[in-house]
Amino acid sequence: MATTSPTTAKPGDRFERLLSTRGRLSRPAGGGGPARGDAKPMYEFAGGRPDPASFPYAELVAATAEMMETEGAEALTYGEAQGYPGLRAWVGDLYRWLEGLEIDPANILITNGSGQGLALVLSALVDVGDAVICEAPTFLGTLGAMRRHGAEIHGVPVDDEGIVTSSVRERLEALRREGRACKLIYTMPTFHNPAGVTATLARRRELIDLAREYDTLLLEDDAYGALRFAGEQVPSLYALDGGERVVRSGTISKVLGAGLRLGWLIAPRELIPIFQGFNFGGGVNPFVSRVATYYMRENMVEHIETLRDVYRDKRDAMLRGLREGLDGTEVAISQPEGGFFLWLTLPENVDPGRVAELAAKAHVHYLPGPAFYPGGEGKEFIRLAYSYESPERCYEGAKALGAAIRQACE
Amino acid sequence: MATTSPTTAKPGDRFERLLSTRGRLSRPAGGGGPARGDAKPMYEFAGGRPDPASFPYAELVAATAEMMETEGAEALTYGEAQGYPGLRAWVGDLYRWLEGLEIDPANILITNGSGQGLALVLSALVDVGDAVICEAPTFLGTLGAMRRHGAEIHGVPVDDEGIVTSSVRERLEALRREGRACKLIYTMPTFHNPAGVTATLARRRELIDLAREYDTLLLEDDAYGALRFAGEQVPSLYALDGGERVVRSGTISKVLGAGLRLGWLIAPRELIPIFQGFNFGGGVNPFVSRVATYYMRENMVEHIETLRDVYRDKRDAMLRGLREGLDGTEVAISQPEGGFFLWLTLPENVDPGRVAELAAKAHVHYLPGPAFYPGGEGKEFIRLAYSYESPERCYEGAKALGAAIRQACE
Repeated sequence: MATTSPTTAKPGDRFERLLSTRGRLSRPAGGGGPARGDAKPMYEFAGGRPDPASFPYAELVAATAEMMETEGAEALTYGEAQGYPGLRAWVGDLYRWLEGLEIDPANILITNGSGQGLALVLSALVDVGDAVICEAPTFLGTLGAMRRHGAEIHGVPVDDEGIVTSSVRERLEALRREGRACKLIYTMPTFHNPAGVTATLARRRELIDLAREYDTLLLEDDAYGALRFAGEQVPSLYALDGGERVVRSGTISKVLGAGLRLGWLIAPRELIPIFQGFNFGGGVNPFVSRVATYYMRENMVEHIETLRDVYRDKRDAMLRGLREGLDGTEVAISQPEGGFFLWLTLPENVDPGRVAELAAKAHVHYLPGPAFYPGGEGKEFIRLAYSYESPERCYEGAKALGAAIRQACE
Repeated sequence: MATTSPTTAKPGDRFERLLSTRGRLSRPAGGGGPARGDAKPMYEFAGGRPDPASFPYAELVAATAEMMETEGAEALTYGEAQGYPGLRAWVGDLYRWLEGLEIDPANILITNGSGQGLALVLSALVDVGDAVICEAPTFLGTLGAMRRHGAEIHGVPVDDEGIVTSSVRERLEALRREGRACKLIYTMPTFHNPAGVTATLARRRELIDLAREYDTLLLEDDAYGALRFAGEQVPSLYALDGGERVVRSGTISKVLGAGLRLGWLIAPRELIPIFQGFNFGGGVNPFVSRVATYYMRENMVEHIETLRDVYRDKRDAMLRGLREGLDGTEVAISQPEGGFFLWLTLPENVDPGRVAELAAKAHVHYLPGPAFYPGGEGKEFIRLAYSYESPERCYEGAKALGAAIRQACE
């Protein structure tokens, strides 16, 4: 269970005196995606980038034309601070279809992708030095945002059943003894990024009970929930809790296109205006909110069901490639039932630096474990995204990486 | 010269204990624009909404189609954290055309409208309780953002030559005596919103000298600079200072459409990654950035020159209507050479509440002066936007308002 203080970077010296505390913290939480324009094509397994072959290019152009015809000026002027009502209604449709859940659009706030949504919650709750709990490993985008907000980050382990609730209790109890609040527990119960685990129903219930007992909020990051391609659905924290103490974030990035920058928070109603107040850009993009809504309103089920097949194939191709490349070398590999990622545990006797060298030679781009840990530990892990490359390239690249790991073990 | 502390609102009681200091501050800085769906049509002179008749509807659909053909997946996946390079290049084109100014795209950060840009600067510089200087009156969106950041806001007056630099010096000197930094001076030197003034060259030079002498930054809000329809251009603070201590914000909202949510900051290079770090939504909308760029690249000069004629006509229509309605009643009215707004000073003997009542009866929607003052003073002022309504309705509504003011004086 690691505790880290905010790291400091060195900003422009000239303006050092003028920077805020948060302005001095950490480095930018980049927009994701690898550097472009590499001389040689890499097997791109690093960022959680959606499958470009599945983007509905022509259909989005048609949706733009239809939308402009119908909406006119509304698409090109300032919109409602809470977000386009049509898109909020569609978010309701999505969860009705996925989970049989009824969500009042008044509880939905549209955001610039879920990244901004998560940051709105941090801004509303976290002062510099405040304690938050998250999984270790956790999503590196949120990790950067927590650091930038100056949070004291308490990482707790994840096992095969999800976040380890006994560790959460220990941490909450320790904070209570110090007379401090835990401002929120950030968790990815479904298709955890990067660990791939889906938390059991029992763990989910324990987590909700803990949030009640210790008077804190659960921040449920559910970027991938719609992309379940195997196994049985487990109820969301939001559904189990009845939306009492859970703020849930979602995104259109993984089911339509990250370039549209649309996401949402679902939250207790009294928190909506507080979160909204930190969205200084005003109501999220009226133009693109309408483009996405016009497309998804007609095509949601068919499009998402297609994507599930796409990502299942890619996962399978990558697993097959790894197996063949490893050729019996013992590496624990997650078996996700949805989402974009595999999580590999390297054997104890292998040097992760040597694996990185050999992978680079094989043109395989991945993210090393320490990127996902609040304290920078986790050297023995590797995250692979099968989302971006074709199944053929997932297979080839994974096979090459498997061979590289095998070689590093020799 | 008014000093205000952050005002407090009452957020959701259940979660009070979990909110951050900033989370408790002030009310949301809404996305602008009036409430929709009024039973009777109002003369909409309140928000700074662009002219809907000038939006290039069909052309933006065509730009979307052309863009998608050329850009493909890049438009639908994560983009560069600093913003689409094509849009940054176009921002360079804009200032080359407007001011003969060369700006390196490396100094440009794309933002979700200028509102987000201004807030990124506040986040990077302002801790709760830090001092900032701005004009009183000032732009109400930024006023809300400064409050939400917990800034101690020092308002200084504006006269016919712009911000009163002798008052700025007094305030800087007072802060220095207290051993405190002024984190930034927020100013609108061109077509001030709401006061309509354009600062003289002399005042601009004095302001830059003050920023240097007292080691602070100038935040130059230039939302309307491209829309000069009369008079001679005065060099921007950014140009005069050589970009040393000036951060300049701009927006596409007023020259193409606020619904696209695109703006930018131009800043010393070492500050770009610090500002960018607070853009937790990642690189600003890759899709709509490209739509706007494809349109503006071809149509900038023609489109903006058309808009200048549009807004000059509307300003003239509103001034004519006011003159006729006032029928000799003495009201000081600004004579802006660009932008969206008139600023009226009511006679001393008139009750602003009575004017508001009569204006409501006449279906005229405007913003009262106190909305623009850090300390809530300025009851004797009214801001009118001529940007949204047609010239005919600008004339009619202004005439009705003029008559209402005349009646209130009787």
